[in-house]
Amino acid sequence: MGKTLTYKILEQHLKSGNMVPGEEISIGIDYTLTQDSTGTMAYLQFEAMGVDRVKTKKSVAYIDHNTLQSGSENADDHKYIGTVAKKHGIYFSRPGNGICHQVNLERFGVPGATLLGSDSHTPTGGGIGMIAIGAGGLDVAVAMGGGAYYLNMPKVVNVELTGQLRPGVAAKDIILEVLRRMTVKGGVGKVIEYSGEALKTLTVPDRATITNMGAELGATTSIFPSDEITRAFLKAQDREEDYTELKADADAVYDEKITIDLSALEPLAACPHMPDNVKTLDEIGPIKVDQVCIGSCTNSSYTDMMKAAAILKGKQVAENVSLVIAPGSKQVFNMLAENGALSDMIAAGARILECACGPCIGMGQSPATNAVSLRTNNRNFFGRSGTKSADIYLVSPEVAAVSAITGVLTSPLTLPAEKLEELKIEMPSHFMINDNMVVPPAENSADVEVVRGPNIQPFPINVELPEEVKGEALLKMEDNITTDHIMPSTAKLLPYRSNIPYLSDYCLSPVDETFPARAKAAGGGFLVAGQNYGQGSSREHAALVPLYLGIKGVIAKSFARIHMANLINSGILPLVFVNEADYDAVAQGDQLAIRDAREKVMGDGEFVVENVTRGTSFPVRLEVSGRLKDILLAGGLLNYTKKQNA
Amino acid sequence: MGKTLTYKILEQHLKSGNMVPGEEISIGIDYTLTQDSTGTMAYLQFEAMGVDRVKTKKSVAYIDHNTLQSGSENADDHKYIGTVAKKHGIYFSRPGNGICHQVNLERFGVPGATLLGSDSHTPTGGGIGMIAIGAGGLDVAVAMGGGAYYLNMPKVVNVELTGQLRPGVAAKDIILEVLRRMTVKGGVGKVIEYSGEALKTLTVPDRATITNMGAELGATTSIFPSDEITRAFLKAQDREEDYTELKADADAVYDEKITIDLSALEPLAACPHMPDNVKTLDEIGPIKVDQVCIGSCTNSSYTDMMKAAAILKGKQVAENVSLVIAPGSKQVFNMLAENGALSDMIAAGARILECACGPCIGMGQSPATNAVSLRTNNRNFFGRSGTKSADIYLVSPEVAAVSAITGVLTSPLTLPAEKLEELKIEMPSHFMINDNMVVPPAENSADVEVVRGPNIQPFPINVELPEEVKGEALLKMEDNITTDHIMPSTAKLLPYRSNIPYLSDYCLSPVDETFPARAKAAGGGFLVAGQNYGQGSSREHAALVPLYLGIKGVIAKSFARIHMANLINSGILPLVFVNEADYDAVAQGDQLAIRDAREKVMGDGEFVVENVTRGTSFPVRLEVSGRLKDILLAGGLLNYTKKQNA
Repeated sequence: MGKTLTYKILEQHLKSGNMVPGEEISIGIDYTLTQDSTGTMAYLQFEAMGVDRVKTKKSVAYIDHNTLQSGSENADDHKYIGTVAKKHGIYFSRPGNGICHQVNLERFGVPGATLLGSDSHTPTGGGIGMIAIGAGGLDVAVAMGGGAYYLNMPKVVNVELTGQLRPGVAAKDIILEVLRRMTVKGGVGKVIEYSGEALKTLTVPDRATITNMGAELGATTSIFPSDEITRAFLKAQDREEDYTELKADADAVYDEKITIDLSALEPLAACPHMPDNVKTLDEIGPIKVDQVCIGSCTNSSYTDMMKAAAILKGKQVAENVSLVIAPGSKQVFNMLAENGALSDMIAAGARILECACGPCIGMGQSPATNAVSLRTNNRNFFGRSGTKSADIYLVSPEVAAVSAITGVLTSPLTLPAEKLEELKIEMPSHFMINDNMVVPPAENSADVEVVRGPNIQPFPINVELPEEVKGEALLKMEDNITTDHIMPSTAKLLPYRSNIPYLSDYCLSPVDETFPARAKAAGGGFLVAGQNYGQGSSREHAALVPLYLGIKGVIAKSFARIHMANLINSGILPLVFVNEADYDAVAQGDQLAIRDAREKVMGDGEFVVENVTRGTSFPVRLEVSGRLKDILLAGGLLNYTKKQNA
Repeated sequence: MGKTLTYKILEQHLKSGNMVPGEEISIGIDYTLTQDSTGTMAYLQFEAMGVDRVKTKKSVAYIDHNTLQSGSENADDHKYIGTVAKKHGIYFSRPGNGICHQVNLERFGVPGATLLGSDSHTPTGGGIGMIAIGAGGLDVAVAMGGGAYYLNMPKVVNVELTGQLRPGVAAKDIILEVLRRMTVKGGVGKVIEYSGEALKTLTVPDRATITNMGAELGATTSIFPSDEITRAFLKAQDREEDYTELKADADAVYDEKITIDLSALEPLAACPHMPDNVKTLDEIGPIKVDQVCIGSCTNSSYTDMMKAAAILKGKQVAENVSLVIAPGSKQVFNMLAENGALSDMIAAGARILECACGPCIGMGQSPATNAVSLRTNNRNFFGRSGTKSADIYLVSPEVAAVSAITGVLTSPLTLPAEKLEELKIEMPSHFMINDNMVVPPAENSADVEVVRGPNIQPFPINVELPEEVKGEALLKMEDNITTDHIMPSTAKLLPYRSNIPYLSDYCLSPVDETFPARAKAAGGGFLVAGQNYGQGSSREHAALVPLYLGIKGVIAKSFARIHMANLINSGILPLVFVNEADYDAVAQGDQLAIRDAREKVMGDGEFVVENVTRGTSFPVRLEVSGRLKDILLAGGLLNYTKKQNA
């Protein structure tokens, strides 16, 4: 039975487990990337592991999210990341060098390798045949320390592309069509593997646009074969030596299959407020447009920008439209400045922004109230633009540029034939290569002092699980407590992601404002909760901050899956009431104790919690497998990884 | 007796008064400009005046301050300004078109004309021989409505420039030398008029750098003659027809005189935290630099940028430095993108920001904690960068660019001779002219609907002073209440400058949080205060917001001068206790009344206030001249101007 490309790469990197869909496997990670928003915490976690230099083939730290710098926190974070990277063997891509996924494609990505990135759009690397997966900061820290990455073996979906796009129809329209068919939940637990005769007509940036937005399917990742087009791209980047031919076996068996005839596609848009709310431009009609944003990790490549420039050349942005353009990398920006395309954009009235994520993540360029904004981004979630009343439509650069001129949503197919011909942008045979904004790591770690501004505070480190776990039931909560209750993430608190002590003053404050102070005074203790504790966002901080406050265990009627994993990674015991009625046997303020805790964790997971205050006791259950037990015993994933490394 | 250039232009525009230094005169205004931060209120005020179309020769509304758009308020303000401008005969310079002062020089400024701008750096226009004055939004609104601008006739200081700058020494160093000699208070009540043989070596951008930073002297304005260099500049802008030769009479008599030998100047820097804290680079030494910002209305011209590009070409920004560059206008940006200079900057590692004020006004690019930042800006006030612990040094573009490469504060005089030669940038014989980002006003006002986002609220309009003024003493305050007490201007409140109802909930809240609600419940009333009421910032909102809350009069032991003027402009009576001891005769909550108020205002200024609650009365004084009495009777400056126009 033939193998899929996904299977082949995973097999080559397999560390443990059976490659059966749904079963846990672990794989070795060749490369990592971080961006600055998640990176500060990832590097604090890496530092806490005590590993001197990264054990990956190459790790790169990018600055692309927080580049507006409204206040000193951003620049402090940049300095921290720059110095911690230099000390520990990590390459540092300076602010202004571009968006991590675009720069990774250009300068670092290697077909057939594994890439773990602390950003959900890491799958962009699948455009050159990598298995590139987005993960939490702690996972990336562990990978940098040489640890394996654990995931459930995905199913593999084959998307076969046939025919050829008409000029004016774009790679963006292919992934929008996939989203229309599969929905934003359709990719969960799956890798999307592309194949078909049409591949020979799709450039690396085209492919990367498709793998990038595979994140919106909920997919583990997406991947294209590595072929002569990949080779030409790498050669034009002076990296032909990184090329390997990679493809699925001819008789590979896929779990699912979809076929898309590119010739039949027309320009599409994802309508508010979800990337799978896809319609044709005809269905939407010529709605008036207030803002157009071209850029983001989805569509900021050289060819994307050249298409936009070709459309804008000699034209003028409509009076009602604010057009902002942010090239994806210094390489792209420099080439546009060199070949006159940038001049064409400026002349047409485009506002040029720094090479960074910018509007896509709501970092500036929030539209006006009730505005319609066309964006080449990957996400149009409600409120993400910073303006709740705005309607965001996701479109190709071609649709964006044409509409910026007309002032209404407009299909590129309305362009004259000679203009459509100009959209066939040749891939350059040689890109402008200048890595002077990538700082290599120091030869000698001891030479580098890590700069920690006041906003950079150490990562809290747990200790090995003791024999006896005891403390006060500090807070008793209802059902359905979310991670937003546990660790609010408001605009006010966002700049403090690297400052756990600061954040701790807000921990569970939506439930009880006195909790942080009481937890500190008591030196930690237990939390007691109802059903579905920790639902909502996957944020790690909802476990890290309680860890900082000394929380040793959470006893609940049930847990949300990801939050339970985060608690385990922090070495906090997630215990489930065996009898839900025992919830009533604990009052806030009761002293609780678990004897022989290490033995219990190693055993069958049945515990008894003594209520010392009341002289009673009740049974609880720890619902975890072997590896997770070891993590709990070690006092969390970092300590576990440290031990593994030692 | 010969006349100064300043005298000649003021004389041509004189509407009233004697041209004796210190005496009030009024002048006609030919041109106005606004920026967006002050502009929303200026246009709300203009609308309140009920004038259909501006009566100036040309009025231009720029967007250059709030271009980050973190939240919908900025874009809402842009839409409001764009539509209100179009409706009322005002040209609209769209976001992305550049900084008001740079664009005004390029495309609108006319030698010998008067320009009133709602931005303190309006004197930049003096670089081409305008009398260009910065003023409050209300003054600009009145000027747009055809009203005169009132000011005290300034003294005229002659700064004679001799010799010639060495390559590597810049116009910035000239104005820094003037600041070193005169200090930040040295220009108050004065116009600085430049002359001398050295003028023939100074380009229009050089001159504009000098007049721009005249604002830091506290001067009314600064001015250069209009000569062949001015003509060449205007011709290169396709505006030779706007040229007039203008200069002082050979035997002009000045109030003061300073001579500066340019040959003796060396590169200078204004050290933290004041623009007159000027030292030579040798005195400061080679301090390590964390950030360099090139741009702002002071040094963002084509020649400034070309000098920076020449220094950066083929070099690399030091690892410890974040270099950000923001060209001053679309014209400049487009020319740099066309001629390769921008490519050189990007290649060297510069971060390119949109054409806007940006870092100079703390809009992004806040330095790291304790960072050293070299900036080509005009102000380095404590905390203005957004980072209180940062040290900001004001320098020339040459110093900035050289230091960005070396990573330490470095003199351009250390450059090799051939590089210094390259800094002799030729003024272009023809600029790239493309006004497509300037929207002309509509032919027909009725065709335009003004777009008011939820943040755009009408300007409060007072009524004619009634015969009887009565109400409760709503708040009794101590001495030295500042305008920051009256109307706080925090980062949180800044986006609401066009939203008086929103701001009113914070009025005087630092003194008494219950005040806004009480004032609203009572339908307005009186304020009672001690000495020096309204000291501090000149903000108009400290009068506008009380007006919105129905405040009819303020009775104080004494007033700060500018705040008293703002109260009068709002039609609020500023009354001074004749006997300071009577302060004790009023308690918060007392009902007060003034009978025959109109007659009293027209009379000798002696009033009696009845304390209805206590059955007592006490004398107060209104210390204003004829014109201001009329303004109070009319219910403020807007109503007064309306009447004048009718």
